Amino acid sequence: MASLPNSGAQSESFYHRDVKWSSREKIAARRAFEQALQREFEIVMNETRQRAAKIKEPADLWSLEDFLTESRKKIDRDFDYRYSQLIEVFAILIERGRLTLEELDGLREEKIDQIRSIVEFYKAS
Amino acid sequence: MASLPNSGAQSESFYHRDVKWSSREKIAARRAFEQALQREFEIVMNETRQRAAKIKEPADLWSLEDFLTESRKKIDRDFDYRYSQLIEVFAILIERGRLTLEELDGLREEKIDQIRSIVEFYKAS
Repeated sequence: MASLPNSGAQSESFYHRDVKWSSREKIAARRAFEQALQREFEIVMNETRQRAAKIKEPADLWSLEDFLTESRKKIDRDFDYRYSQLIEVFAILIERGRLTLEELDGLREEKIDQIRSIVEFYKAS
Repeated sequence: MASLPNSGAQSESFYHRDVKWSSREKIAARRAFEQALQREFEIVMNETRQRAAKIKEPADLWSLEDFLTESRKKIDRDFDYRYSQLIEVFAILIERGRLTLEELDGLREEKIDQIRSIVEFYKAS
């Protein structure tokens, strides 16, 4: 996960530790999060099936094991459903193509703007 | 790997730390060892393909990861090509169906007898 800057005027808007989430927003956030997670799982499951079908020698086994271990660690790390992290998590999921801004319908415009700003920051960096 | 008894008259014949291996025996041992290892790999590769083809949900991914990790550790542990260990290693491979006594052709009769004794010990325990 790329690091966001932790100093400077722009970075202030990137930190959302104390941001408030209404009940409606929490429902929308959970739905979007689960959708992105399901997409991630589908991608890993497809890749696993393809890799397994191509296994020809023992080294391919351990390469598949590494792929699964790394995928599990990455999912554990990236899919962090803490409200203090969620703005940045959504930005990363959008940047990685697991979610669209439109699927965050239900979040306040202010949050959508923050997420959009971070996505643009990632694209530019 | 099951432990052999480390006391009593019978166990004396189970320890072969100082056993000598002739050049001819080393060639035969290496050939049999590699054959058993290749069989082990084929079994793990087949099982992996079958498990991957049945993946339906994320839990199946981590179950496959566990299977691969355990298989790798088991192979590392069981396929121990030290001459001090080889009598016991061959007995285990025979007991597990990865090798036959006949495939150890080239080893001296004394070693074959020792291996056969250990296989019988495993079968009885």
